[in-house]
Amino acid sequence: MHFTSEQRFDDGVLEREFTLGEIPGFLWTPESASAPAPLILISPPPLGLGKTYPRLAARARYYAAEYGFAVATIELPGSGDRPRLAALDQARADLRRVIGAGEPVSGEIVDALILPLVEEAVPEWQATLDALLALPEIGGPVGYEGGIISIGVRLAAVEPRISAAGLFAGSLVPAAMFEEAREVTVPLQILLQWDDEGNDRQAALNLFDAFGSKEKTLHANMGGHTGVPQYELDAGARFFVRHLK
Amino acid sequence: MHFTSEQRFDDGVLEREFTLGEIPGFLWTPESASAPAPLILISPPPLGLGKTYPRLAARARYYAAEYGFAVATIELPGSGDRPRLAALDQARADLRRVIGAGEPVSGEIVDALILPLVEEAVPEWQATLDALLALPEIGGPVGYEGGIISIGVRLAAVEPRISAAGLFAGSLVPAAMFEEAREVTVPLQILLQWDDEGNDRQAALNLFDAFGSKEKTLHANMGGHTGVPQYELDAGARFFVRHLK
Repeated sequence: MHFTSEQRFDDGVLEREFTLGEIPGFLWTPESASAPAPLILISPPPLGLGKTYPRLAARARYYAAEYGFAVATIELPGSGDRPRLAALDQARADLRRVIGAGEPVSGEIVDALILPLVEEAVPEWQATLDALLALPEIGGPVGYEGGIISIGVRLAAVEPRISAAGLFAGSLVPAAMFEEAREVTVPLQILLQWDDEGNDRQAALNLFDAFGSKEKTLHANMGGHTGVPQYELDAGARFFVRHLK
Repeated sequence: MHFTSEQRFDDGVLEREFTLGEIPGFLWTPESASAPAPLILISPPPLGLGKTYPRLAARARYYAAEYGFAVATIELPGSGDRPRLAALDQARADLRRVIGAGEPVSGEIVDALILPLVEEAVPEWQATLDALLALPEIGGPVGYEGGIISIGVRLAAVEPRISAAGLFAGSLVPAAMFEEAREVTVPLQILLQWDDEGNDRQAALNLFDAFGSKEKTLHANMGGHTGVPQYELDAGARFFVRHLK
């Protein structure tokens, strides 16, 4: 992990850009912390860190400044300036085509769209976690929060260092992930946009039902994919405070 | 409204018992308030105020002490020491019989169980609201929170002084209430216990969908009817802070 730039903000948060091998990322830490900070990993949506930086940074700095969390994010495979993934680009083209034609989205397209991302991204998050936990200013426990729910499902199922996860039921989910969800046992808080135009409400409810966790909470709100209400920011922070502090 | 007793607590909350005509109730107010307090009405479950007092009082004093709300509750029709309602007792006996026999609960039984309560309780809440808002220490706006969701649906639909409602999808709902729910437009936060043994999950989701409110949030948690997690207490308070303060 190499830090490539840093910036200090008025809210007492230090923002550092880093690279881990070829993967770019950001780390936000509260400068006032007297002990190693608990960590929240935020996985971005697949739009590239450049486009999502304003929202991600606002969220991360809120967690750091208000609650003393360290927060990190890395670019998804095939997003932003990272090398394209041909199979993923093909799957996205297929998705656009069937949606444009008003056809149903097949399980094959969903699998092609999501499973390669999960396969690539999860080991990257684990390597990022190794590097972050080696920093003296970061302790644990570790929470995960993220946009592509299948990545969160796999990471929470296989990575014992993840103690709690906040997930967004806003992407298509391969059938295989419903089985993996049963292996997840950490506390979960799941956001669902009731009228998400790109996501099937019943599938999201089925996935919530499938998780093996004894403590899981669904927050369903009105509106479409991008309409998550502002107050869920604090609700997410409070979920992590309960489980990581 | 006649106050019949009062008690001051260490948390700075004044608890007063009152009667409004024949209806007994409690009022909790923050003693430190410098301005008229916003009001939350809490409708108890139909077990009688005696049995539910410990939980109700803890909830009310938390709202009053932590957030400066005035909080009031009244005994439901036919509950506690109030005169029995013969039709309601008959409906409850019918419900026990069909559940004991493993039979489905008919719409007729649900209607008989809930509709008379709604008819009786809603005007009582409105009269209570008249009396409470006449007290100098209580201002507005007014929130409602309660156990039998159909009472909340009707009250929120017909009573313009209710500005926000926190409801518990934990009781059987007459078919007619789904139509009334469309008339509700105030912000809602609705609790659903995912494995509520006395309630149908899909019906609860359908009711959430039916509400006319632009801002509505569903909090679904694991467990049975009585297993609402402790952290929903603060989530409820924050909902009312957003809309009443």
